Amino acid sequence: MSKEIPNKMEKLLFFLPLIIPLLSVAATCRHPLDPLSSSEFEIIRSLITNSNPSTNITFQYVALADPTKQSVLSWLANPKTRPPPRRATATIRFNKATHEILIDLEKKTMISNRVYSGTGYAPFTFEEQFAAAALPASHPPFVAAMKKRGLKLEEVVCACFSVGWFGEKRKVEQRIVKVQCYYLDGSVNLYMRPVEGVTVTVDLDEMKIIGFRDRYVVPIPKAGGTEYRESMLKPPFLPPLNGMKMVQPDGPSFQINGHSVSWANWNFHVSLDERAGPIISLASIYDIQKQKRRQVMYRGFISELFVPYMDLNEEWYYRTFFDAGEYGFGQCAVPLQPLRDCPENAVFMDTYMAAGDGRPMKMSNTFCIFERHGGDIMWRHTEGTIPNTLIRETRAEISLVVRMVAAVGNYDYIVDWEFKQSGSIIANVGLTGLLEVRASKYTHKDQIKEEVYGPLLAENTIGVRHDHFLTYHLDLDIDGDANSFLKSNLRTIRSQDPDYPRRSYWTVVTETAKTEADARIKFGFQQDELVVVNPNQRTRMGNPVGYRLIPKSTTSPLLSADDYPQIRGAFSNYNVWVTPYNRSEKWASGLYTDQSHGDDTLATWSLRDREIEDKDIVMWYTMGFHHVPCQEDFPLMPTLSSGFELRPTNFFESNPVLKVTPPHIVNLTNFSQTSNHN
Amino acid sequence: MSKEIPNKMEKLLFFLPLIIPLLSVAATCRHPLDPLSSSEFEIIRSLITNSNPSTNITFQYVALADPTKQSVLSWLANPKTRPPPRRATATIRFNKATHEILIDLEKKTMISNRVYSGTGYAPFTFEEQFAAAALPASHPPFVAAMKKRGLKLEEVVCACFSVGWFGEKRKVEQRIVKVQCYYLDGSVNLYMRPVEGVTVTVDLDEMKIIGFRDRYVVPIPKAGGTEYRESMLKPPFLPPLNGMKMVQPDGPSFQINGHSVSWANWNFHVSLDERAGPIISLASIYDIQKQKRRQVMYRGFISELFVPYMDLNEEWYYRTFFDAGEYGFGQCAVPLQPLRDCPENAVFMDTYMAAGDGRPMKMSNTFCIFERHGGDIMWRHTEGTIPNTLIRETRAEISLVVRMVAAVGNYDYIVDWEFKQSGSIIANVGLTGLLEVRASKYTHKDQIKEEVYGPLLAENTIGVRHDHFLTYHLDLDIDGDANSFLKSNLRTIRSQDPDYPRRSYWTVVTETAKTEADARIKFGFQQDELVVVNPNQRTRMGNPVGYRLIPKSTTSPLLSADDYPQIRGAFSNYNVWVTPYNRSEKWASGLYTDQSHGDDTLATWSLRDREIEDKDIVMWYTMGFHHVPCQEDFPLMPTLSSGFELRPTNFFESNPVLKVTPPHIVNLTNFSQTSNHN
Repeated sequence: MSKEIPNKMEKLLFFLPLIIPLLSVAATCRHPLDPLSSSEFEIIRSLITNSNPSTNITFQYVALADPTKQSVLSWLANPKTRPPPRRATATIRFNKATHEILIDLEKKTMISNRVYSGTGYAPFTFEEQFAAAALPASHPPFVAAMKKRGLKLEEVVCACFSVGWFGEKRKVEQRIVKVQCYYLDGSVNLYMRPVEGVTVTVDLDEMKIIGFRDRYVVPIPKAGGTEYRESMLKPPFLPPLNGMKMVQPDGPSFQINGHSVSWANWNFHVSLDERAGPIISLASIYDIQKQKRRQVMYRGFISELFVPYMDLNEEWYYRTFFDAGEYGFGQCAVPLQPLRDCPENAVFMDTYMAAGDGRPMKMSNTFCIFERHGGDIMWRHTEGTIPNTLIRETRAEISLVVRMVAAVGNYDYIVDWEFKQSGSIIANVGLTGLLEVRASKYTHKDQIKEEVYGPLLAENTIGVRHDHFLTYHLDLDIDGDANSFLKSNLRTIRSQDPDYPRRSYWTVVTETAKTEADARIKFGFQQDELVVVNPNQRTRMGNPVGYRLIPKSTTSPLLSADDYPQIRGAFSNYNVWVTPYNRSEKWASGLYTDQSHGDDTLATWSLRDREIEDKDIVMWYTMGFHHVPCQEDFPLMPTLSSGFELRPTNFFESNPVLKVTPPHIVNLTNFSQTSNHN
Repeated sequence: MSKEIPNKMEKLLFFLPLIIPLLSVAATCRHPLDPLSSSEFEIIRSLITNSNPSTNITFQYVALADPTKQSVLSWLANPKTRPPPRRATATIRFNKATHEILIDLEKKTMISNRVYSGTGYAPFTFEEQFAAAALPASHPPFVAAMKKRGLKLEEVVCACFSVGWFGEKRKVEQRIVKVQCYYLDGSVNLYMRPVEGVTVTVDLDEMKIIGFRDRYVVPIPKAGGTEYRESMLKPPFLPPLNGMKMVQPDGPSFQINGHSVSWANWNFHVSLDERAGPIISLASIYDIQKQKRRQVMYRGFISELFVPYMDLNEEWYYRTFFDAGEYGFGQCAVPLQPLRDCPENAVFMDTYMAAGDGRPMKMSNTFCIFERHGGDIMWRHTEGTIPNTLIRETRAEISLVVRMVAAVGNYDYIVDWEFKQSGSIIANVGLTGLLEVRASKYTHKDQIKEEVYGPLLAENTIGVRHDHFLTYHLDLDIDGDANSFLKSNLRTIRSQDPDYPRRSYWTVVTETAKTEADARIKFGFQQDELVVVNPNQRTRMGNPVGYRLIPKSTTSPLLSADDYPQIRGAFSNYNVWVTPYNRSEKWASGLYTDQSHGDDTLATWSLRDREIEDKDIVMWYTMGFHHVPCQEDFPLMPTLSSGFELRPTNFFESNPVLKVTPPHIVNLTNFSQTSNHN
């Protein structure tokens, strides 16, 4: 689900504000896709604040402005040449207007500053969410509502929820959020203790309350049983397992240079975007057969996370969150804890982001990178067929994982990108953290005779049904950017010849998608292999080189296509879309998602039905979860994961890991074990 | 795919024949589900051979006869009591008759000996496959055929293929196999070098050739590029990664007592069956909240692996293998190599099987058991919402894996059962090894204008399209054996009330399957949650306790339902079936699969449409792979995996791993690394 309650403590703990003299800026010898540095954030902030002496600027989204793909690739071909001009884009809000500002970071000049007046707004800042969430405490009707419920005001904490759009014809000129509150009083698990029935509406620009509803009173679920802190939990505990540790005496096998990572046959670049979270760029693999490095993916990232709840109550119907476009999925990244969030052999990477006032904030351990040796087998064969010969060959699987975790309010998303020496790229997302529950009068299932939109998880606690749709932007450039999308349909053929003993078989009927309409795939209805190929590069045998998508989830939306949240989330109507590469088409929910009307989404772009054959194309894959909560998810849910694999398919002339060399053997002499916990 | 070429060397290397005096038998103080011991195999062999002084008995399938579930459970409730009578079943062949023999292992008597005269035959033995595969070399027409091709006879090796059934009305009274041959001559990768066009037909009982066809000559694919042995491969190699090792100073956290395994909150029993491979029994989990051990799965195993090829040529149409029923999937188990097939911290388990002459053979390292610590996160949450409080809680995932590998001829199947402290049981299968390819005149895709049933992988090498369907027998007994199967359909509801801002939501409409027909599920058409519950056990909140099936693959068959292989493999027509527990319904393809007519399959049993509500039920899940080979699969394929999860769903009152204790910390002092490879 999707919201963020900002909090000064959190930022103090996560971020160290930096003041850096402008002079110290050196934009040279950096990778053109590196995220903005603290000094670059300072340049942006200074230019904007100096040109607008208003004190009321909020920096809603600050990011590197993508250099053109051609300029990046030509720089990459010869890194000694001058990198493409380094620019930043800032979406700011002041005087109730949204400004899109483009900045030249080298010349330290503002290239353009245009006011955006279309529908929708940029992501919230932590600060404005924090300020809005703090308003109810001094709002007399709210105070009275808490008093009426016998609640201690100081134990009430609130959260900001995006309001969505429900068919209003004209643009709402106010940036509005709804504030919902929770009760601590003996629990830190606020999400399990909603103060149901009370809704506060806030104008973010005015930063004042513009609406208040106290619709009904239901009991607040009890604090007991909601604790999840190790230090506070009471026995019985599961017994501890014996210690395990992954040791790498020579250290990891990867090198990190700035944000560029090289490991085994892979090179790629890792960056953080406030909205997308991790961005993997320029993933290329060294082909030992061809003795050359080959392009696989120009860029891959999570473009949107659409999380609609299935509760029509007044306090719930609008909860149809867009975690990237409304809350800034990358902004919700949390520092990873060594030994807990990542194993012993992980290496960590820090990042910077802009605070609401534009100042750079450093976050430590945003990413961890580690080699996974989980006991899987890369390939094997035992051959007992040949007289006087026994062959047993096995290679153990070791892969590389890049991880980020975003805590979007109650939900924690574990985002992994995994690289295999075989050429596969695996994206995996783990959902954990805390459910969003509705307080209810019910204490037993048998009392429930009406639709309550979810199962009873604990006394007075309804786990509201919801979805998670993660839409990945996958800009594969297989051996270059002129690619095509093949739908290989597995089709049953009746054998016509009566003399054939067999009556049927299946074959593959491959169709090249000519236009976007050909490439819209909804899973579950037929069995296809979906392959992005380079039609101009063929193997020695004449097969087009490619990568295929192997999904683990085939979930699609269940909301009516004409329902407003689904119109805004129409990019989830298909599991797969293919579009021609367009630098401006990054955000499946549109550039301005908060209060959007769904008129700038992947689904609307795709209506142009552009040509996609032998072009620079982008594949969009939506992975979905229909989440029917269960009691195991209370008070905190065990990780639920899904993902997909991008697997080379006639990309290599033959098995690329046939000639993998097993890792060096590690001999350990004495080691000790303490009984402390990590 | 599916065949086994037996070989004396292999057995000498894998197995140590044992002669054990009958007196040494001690059937006491063993688990009633333990697999047959070497002395028990000896009892069986002696009783049968002594009563039939024929020298020509072949032991096709020897197994523990399942004690009744009730007798096992009552023994388990009080292991001091006398265990259920220990019996064995042997399916033997002599004088062209199939005998089913039931033996009392304690009394050392033959309880019954009945002749089976229905259709179908028991699995092949290694010895008869080996003998049949050796026949062509002394068959003049075959010798001539090799000579005509200019092949050295001593470089030709052959394999036995089951012939299937293609509509003959009456039972074929001969046990027939087809023998196909391959050419080594500079390669050990025989499967990449088929001698195409030549088919030899053998009567296994007579052990003589009854048919020979030399239909056409095509080039044999070249030996070059087919090598996969580390010792023989030539540079360039992928660079070795730095050494990694999982250390557990206090050893693993599990205990193995005979075949019983206990780890963390799990207890279960591991056994080997010649046909099924690994059998997991009596999986139960300790519930720390209820402070008691709870039943989850009485038994889980792979009942059948159906592997039909999609090539209608005379030499190929019949290749529709049943790896369990025809070849004995468990019989094809291979010894696992430490550090390669299983990680450093694995513990291995040996097993015994019966040779074709009934003598016990020991196989070392049939199973490995290890704790997986792959860097995943069991659960986490970062809470930054509460003033002056920052909460960061994460628990790392450590799970337990039980692994067996079966090399069924060219294909290697990696079978994992994984147990999580959260209560999840995850079954995973990895496919690797060698493809079955067809030799062809073609050397480039552009030459191909006809249907060749697969892509060109290398010169003269067609990777024939095929499927793998793995059908699991999952006898869940959730808190006892009276269970029901719930289909929870996720259904879109249009909101009727025009005042509602939302136009739709989805809800869950749960239907209890009354009879088998209600429980046949084909994936892909609607979105269901499939849950096995105990309708008599409810949580405090009133939810029925259960486990749900989370599949990773939703593949279903593409052969016509009326095609003969699909009639025999009709158990794959649905992804999920539920049947009432019946001790005789273990083998989805029937007890006698070789040459079966499909009249004794899960699909035919299920036609009775028995009641399954509040009964002891078995869930059957079929996981499928449609395999379109690609050049990466040549000359040996990187592992392709899929699987499913059985996840507790309102089984526990709340998150069962909330109170997991992190493992002890491991402190390592000096260690060294040698540069040898493992």
